[in-house]
Amino acid sequence: MKRPPILFATANPHKVREIREILGPCFTVLSLLDYGLPGPEESGTTLEENAEIKARYAYERTGIPAVGEDTGLFVRALKWAPGIYSARFSGGGDRENREKLLYLMRGEGDRYAEFRTALVFYDGRRLETFLGVLPGRIATVERGKGGFGYDPLFVPEGHTRTLAEMSPQEKNAISHRRKALMSFLKWLVREIR
Amino acid sequence: MKRPPILFATANPHKVREIREILGPCFTVLSLLDYGLPGPEESGTTLEENAEIKARYAYERTGIPAVGEDTGLFVRALKWAPGIYSARFSGGGDRENREKLLYLMRGEGDRYAEFRTALVFYDGRRLETFLGVLPGRIATVERGKGGFGYDPLFVPEGHTRTLAEMSPQEKNAISHRRKALMSFLKWLVREIR
Repeated sequence: MKRPPILFATANPHKVREIREILGPCFTVLSLLDYGLPGPEESGTTLEENAEIKARYAYERTGIPAVGEDTGLFVRALKWAPGIYSARFSGGGDRENREKLLYLMRGEGDRYAEFRTALVFYDGRRLETFLGVLPGRIATVERGKGGFGYDPLFVPEGHTRTLAEMSPQEKNAISHRRKALMSFLKWLVREIR
Repeated sequence: MKRPPILFATANPHKVREIREILGPCFTVLSLLDYGLPGPEESGTTLEENAEIKARYAYERTGIPAVGEDTGLFVRALKWAPGIYSARFSGGGDRENREKLLYLMRGEGDRYAEFRTALVFYDGRRLETFLGVLPGRIATVERGKGGFGYDPLFVPEGHTRTLAEMSPQEKNAISHRRKALMSFLKWLVREIR
C-alpha cells in the first residue's frame, strides 16, 4: 500500500523538497512539477489569497484535491515588507533579494521579522486555510549554505544560527512551513482537544 | 507546532511501537497506555467488530477520536484459524501460540496464510473501517528475533525471510498494519483518484 498522495500547488523545487522532508514518511508529496504545470500568476494581496489562487488552479487543472502554499518574510522595520513580494523583491534572484534586504536594513536597530506560510486546501467544495509563523530577526551578514531564499539572513527566535546554518532536520523541526503543515494535518484528523 | 495526536485504542506496546514507527514522523501516536487504561474485552466475532469495540471504548473514556485495531493470522489449512483468536490461541503467550501453530501444521503441504489488520475510526459520529492484508506462508521452523507474535513463523509472499528476520523498516514497509494505516490516511485526505 503506497503512501496516500497529497498534491501541493507549487512549482518551486525547494518548497517541494522541504514538504517532502516533513510529510514524506506518511504521504506521497506531489507538486505541479509532477504534472508539468507552471505556477499560476500570484495576483493576490495576501499570502492567503495567493495560496487560494494556487489551490484552485491546481484543483481545476488536475481534478485532485490540492494544497496551495505561499510564504513571505515580513520585516517590522520595513513596515512588514517584503511580505507577499518576497520572491520578487529585487527583480532578481534569491541573492539579489538578500542583498536588497541587507541594504535596506543597514544601521537599523529593530531586526524583528517573521516568516509566514499560508496553506489553503481546496477539493472543489471545501476551502480551508492554515497558517504557520516563525518569529526571529534579520542577521547583519549572510551565514550558512542550507535552505533557500532569505534563510541565510534569518535567525529564529531562541536560536543563534540562521536557518541556512541548520541541518534540514533542524530547520524542518521549527519552520513556518512545518507549523502550517502540522496545522493542516491537525485539521485532517479533526482533533477535538 | 507539535505533530497532531491520533489515539490508537490498543494497550499492546508492540503494536504501539509499530504504529509509531510508521506514523511517528507526522503524527503523535497515543495509546491506551498513555491514559492508564487496559484494553477492553474483545467480544466481537470478527476483526472489524473487535476494532470497533476498541474504538468506541477509547472514545467513550477519553472523548478523543480514536482508532481501534485488531489483527489476526488466518491459516487456510486450519480453516482460517486462529483468526480473531490469534493472541489467545494456546492460552499461553506468543511462544506457546507459535508452538501450537507449528504442531497443528506439521506435515501440512498447504502453508498459505494471511495476516489481516482491521482499523476502525470513531469520533462519536463517524465510524469508518480500514483493512490491511499481508499474504504469505507458514514456515516449518521459527526464524528471527524481530517483530512479535507469529512473526517468526510468517514468510510474506515474494520474500524468503520471516517477518521476524526483517528489520523494523522492512517489516513496516510491507506489513498488514502498514497497509491498514495507509488506507486510513488515504481516507483522511479523501483522495478522489
